[in-house]
Amino acid sequence: MDAAELDPTSEEERIAVQLGMVGLGRMGGNMAERLRAAGHEVVGYANDGTGDVQSLEELVGALAAPRTVWLMVPSGDPTHSTVESLAGLLESGDLVVDGGNSRFTDDTVHAERLGAGGVHYADCGVSGGVWGRTEGYGLMAGGSDEDIERLMPVFDALRPEGPREEGFAHAGPVGAGHYAKMVHNGVEYGLMQAYAEGYELLSAGGPVTDVGAVMKAWSRGTVVRSWLLDLMVLALEADPHLDQITGYAEDSGEGRWTVDEAIVHAVPLPVISAALFARFASRQTDSPAMKAVAALRAQFGGHAVHKAGEAANEPPTGG
Amino acid sequence: MDAAELDPTSEEERIAVQLGMVGLGRMGGNMAERLRAAGHEVVGYANDGTGDVQSLEELVGALAAPRTVWLMVPSGDPTHSTVESLAGLLESGDLVVDGGNSRFTDDTVHAERLGAGGVHYADCGVSGGVWGRTEGYGLMAGGSDEDIERLMPVFDALRPEGPREEGFAHAGPVGAGHYAKMVHNGVEYGLMQAYAEGYELLSAGGPVTDVGAVMKAWSRGTVVRSWLLDLMVLALEADPHLDQITGYAEDSGEGRWTVDEAIVHAVPLPVISAALFARFASRQTDSPAMKAVAALRAQFGGHAVHKAGEAANEPPTGG
Amino acid sequence: MDAAELDPTSEEERIAVQLGMVGLGRMGGNMAERLRAAGHEVVGYANDGTGDVQSLEELVGALAAPRTVWLMVPSGDPTHSTVESLAGLLESGDLVVDGGNSRFTDDTVHAERLGAGGVHYADCGVSGGVWGRTEGYGLMAGGSDEDIERLMPVFDALRPEGPREEGFAHAGPVGAGHYAKMVHNGVEYGLMQAYAEGYELLSAGGPVTDVGAVMKAWSRGTVVRSWLLDLMVLALEADPHLDQITGYAEDSGEGRWTVDEAIVHAVPLPVISAALFARFASRQTDSPAMKAVAALRAQFGGHAVHKAGEAANEPPTGG
Amino acid sequence: MDAAELDPTSEEERIAVQLGMVGLGRMGGNMAERLRAAGHEVVGYANDGTGDVQSLEELVGALAAPRTVWLMVPSGDPTHSTVESLAGLLESGDLVVDGGNSRFTDDTVHAERLGAGGVHYADCGVSGGVWGRTEGYGLMAGGSDEDIERLMPVFDALRPEGPREEGFAHAGPVGAGHYAKMVHNGVEYGLMQAYAEGYELLSAGGPVTDVGAVMKAWSRGTVVRSWLLDLMVLALEADPHLDQITGYAEDSGEGRWTVDEAIVHAVPLPVISAALFARFASRQTDSPAMKAVAALRAQFGGHAVHKAGEAANEPPTGG
Repeated sequence: MDAAELDPTSEEERIAVQLGMVGLGRMGGNMAERLRAAGHEVVGYANDGTGDVQSLEELVGALAAPRTVWLMVPSGDPTHSTVESLAGLLESGDLVVDGGNSRFTDDTVHAERLGAGGVHYADCGVSGGVWGRTEGYGLMAGGSDEDIERLMPVFDALRPEGPREEGFAHAGPVGAGHYAKMVHNGVEYGLMQAYAEGYELLSAGGPVTDVGAVMKAWSRGTVVRSWLLDLMVLALEADPHLDQITGYAEDSGEGRWTVDEAIVHAVPLPVISAALFARFASRQTDSPAMKAVAALRAQFGGHAVHKAGEAANEPPTGG
Repeated sequence: MDAAELDPTSEEERIAVQLGMVGLGRMGGNMAERLRAAGHEVVGYANDGTGDVQSLEELVGALAAPRTVWLMVPSGDPTHSTVESLAGLLESGDLVVDGGNSRFTDDTVHAERLGAGGVHYADCGVSGGVWGRTEGYGLMAGGSDEDIERLMPVFDALRPEGPREEGFAHAGPVGAGHYAKMVHNGVEYGLMQAYAEGYELLSAGGPVTDVGAVMKAWSRGTVVRSWLLDLMVLALEADPHLDQITGYAEDSGEGRWTVDEAIVHAVPLPVISAALFARFASRQTDSPAMKAVAALRAQFGGHAVHKAGEAANEPPTGG
Repeated sequence: MDAAELDPTSEEERIAVQLGMVGLGRMGGNMAERLRAAGHEVVGYANDGTGDVQSLEELVGALAAPRTVWLMVPSGDPTHSTVESLAGLLESGDLVVDGGNSRFTDDTVHAERLGAGGVHYADCGVSGGVWGRTEGYGLMAGGSDEDIERLMPVFDALRPEGPREEGFAHAGPVGAGHYAKMVHNGVEYGLMQAYAEGYELLSAGGPVTDVGAVMKAWSRGTVVRSWLLDLMVLALEADPHLDQITGYAEDSGEGRWTVDEAIVHAVPLPVISAALFARFASRQTDSPAMKAVAALRAQFGGHAVHKAGEAANEPPTGG
Repeated sequence: MDAAELDPTSEEERIAVQLGMVGLGRMGGNMAERLRAAGHEVVGYANDGTGDVQSLEELVGALAAPRTVWLMVPSGDPTHSTVESLAGLLESGDLVVDGGNSRFTDDTVHAERLGAGGVHYADCGVSGGVWGRTEGYGLMAGGSDEDIERLMPVFDALRPEGPREEGFAHAGPVGAGHYAKMVHNGVEYGLMQAYAEGYELLSAGGPVTDVGAVMKAWSRGTVVRSWLLDLMVLALEADPHLDQITGYAEDSGEGRWTVDEAIVHAVPLPVISAALFARFASRQTDSPAMKAVAALRAQFGGHAVHKAGEAANEPPTGG
């Protein structure tokens, strides 16, 4: 990877900046690498000792004021406590960016906490997963015009090549970046489930004999072509019938928050909620609800039920 | 059971009729019993030799013209072939009633086949399950005014006590009875799933300590009181945590036909279709769609997946 | 209405109690009436001056210690402020019951606020709507064994005749009553939507000629018989094609809380959420989501769109 | 457009073929143009007189045996009658390809009809809409190995540049092409609805101030990037709040067939069906189902309803 490839602005316009990166996991570590490749100076800190410095104090000491500290730590308590610590260490004029997957409602709390000491705050939703290091990350930022402007060299290095506005948006005030990322992830759930249902139906007994070939043929020219489809093709090339994997799908918080937020605004979300619920169901060994349905059928119809212990995929033997 | 209890019409108005009953299973057998208790003469035939006669020929011979033959055989081929056989045996003026769970589109075919020989045809959706013998059956009939009038003594004996219109409707022409029953069953799917979801949420870790007591307390006075709720209470009294049953729920054809028919008429059916799909999912040992979702998550996020063979209810051990 | 009808316990076992009722609207007013008919003494207070007393101070003064005060005020701020006021007026040993539609998470807050002064707290979900005055209310109570025991004369007067456990449950500790009521209402949404979808499909062009008669015939004997169905029959008798009403359905908070709570516990709730979203959609004059779908169709397919201002129910005129 | 751009195979490998194109509408006309640009000879026929020939007879006469005739006419009766006519005109060894949006179950019927006279048959699902002329079409073909091989020069000209398997699949025997296209369109419904729900939620009152900018920023680097997203961005650039369009979305048959087919195979399809139902609902001026819900609420709760004639988006004025 070459910095010139990553940054479409010309050499003279490019400004190298210094920033601290807190959190050097799969996301933070890759982002630090991409930033350095673009010519920026990154001082990394991770609580497992793998960073350039061994404490937040040391990190703050290693940065010249006014400092920029980018957080890539798990949302919730880890982010809360990092913000709390930084509030005691940073100075007026410094700037903290939360690039993790925090709930957008945390942003105003964090902004207020830091703002009490004159420390600026911005939030940035980051999409791209493990591919972001080489392809760049899609970025949605929330904060004041001034703070976002100040961060543009960083955003420009992290986002994909191409027109800035195709991989970066200043979404609105503090919180807007994480809000946009939350909705992004909700949409992502819906998209994934749509492909997944298509995959299942293609595989379910119709005339299609090569499901992988069909989904690969969707890669160009079709209405459904997308990056997720490309990943689906990769997955099917590696394991054509997905025999090596079970249908157990975690959910990160954003899908839940998306549905919660839709409820707040009375927005119907049938597809995204269905995708979320499908993940919930995928993690159950047995469904209490479907036990209840089976019990009701037995009550009114004398329908046979599967006794606990019978294999669930065999038809009940009773009458 | 006393005939006087079953038939609200006074002694002098009641007309005893003769009819043949084809199919003496859980439904047909109970119905024959209820009809006889009401004073009607039932000649029963079943292909397992348990009836009063041993063949359709014998059945037709045992009935005085104009005959009434009520079918309670499985829908699809068994009903088709019975209609076909009867078309060759019955005479003009005879009347066949299909009381089974046929698809309403079969009714016009059967009516035409029989009508070619002057044999009348009516269809009747029958609800009530194993409880119908004592409580009476809810009936939805399709056919001509003349044929429905002719069948009223039979309908009056089968339906529950109380005002006729609360347990019987002449829903429309041939096919309307099975159409009404199809929709009835679609609604039933939705109702069952609603209670089932409530049961699961009550059981899922909130402050409610006695789920069975709560659902029993819904039996009177509440907005959700119903016969299905009463059955849910019975089920929970017998097995408070439904430990003896697995969450495997069959579907009979009507729920599928209901969704198919909604699609024909462009009627949104989010609840009934969700209930149907929940049953489909309940019968899968693993979900191909959720394998695809898990595979996609692994591709873009480096998320751990459950390898086939791992217990599905444990979180993945990888990173 | 006769007290003897309402209270199934015999005269000698019945204990007349005194209680204050705060809130005398559609629910509180009817409940006060039912309690008085059962021989209890009710001192009513409403902030519109229609009660027996004109202030909470007066209410507390009119009751003998240890007092029981039942709240039937709107959830949220009105209930919060009433609890706050009562905390300043009541004495140790008094008991407040929130019978309104509060979110269950409010209960622990209210219990703590009151408990600081030794005032007891219980919560009670109340179902039955305007019919409760004569038919009795379904009750789900949360609180300590001692407090619930103390309230039993009140619960017995409010609940329907019949076995106590069919119209009342001690659901668990403080909060469990409102939790049970929340789930009850979520189930109610699903049930209503199931009947509504059935009504729409019956009306949509199949062979059924008398939809009202069909739904009335479901009243007895069928699997789908219920109190909600009885109400549907009443509605269709009054307005056979629902011409006098538009498809605009409010939602009270409980349906939303039910879905929120399901998300907390990772419980799939496809039917209840679909019913909630259908209500959201019913209140939109136009759907932003469907504008987006229409815009996408126009983009990729050159499909005609409805321009704003065209009647939405006519097919687009373009090509 | 230059043929060399369209066809990645080198000049010497490329084989120019002759084919008849029946149907010269938005799809057929563009496809004929793309085929000609690739060096193939296309004899076009349309029933509006705009083609190269004025009748199917003339078309067949203009082609050298063994002929290839590609159909791009509306599915259902227009395709049936074209196949019927061609069956009377073509000779043994000729080949008909149905590239329209026929239901896959029609393919075996058409193949049999033509096969009786020795005429070969293949089906091809074609995706890409109005963009296909320049970008190429995604193709899913069904038929025998021999017939598909024979058609490869045509497929290669129609599909996008790049590896053949990324824009073309031999999906299976006759019918498999349309089956794959049917599922493709079902997936497309789900994808579109997912973006649409995201658009609505972003616009619904959260902190995001520039929805168009956010969705444009999803174009590169994010998990949700896709061609449909690109179209969404174009639509929002042209009409940032979609003010010029109403939320009325037609559905072509494929979405319905997808759900029907899922029901046949007992495949749960919550997302695709929800997307289909959202389109159905978008075309209703009022929802009969939601009238029923509103009527039920009025019955049990004394809740105010919207009388017909009141504006649907105003809260009811009653109590």
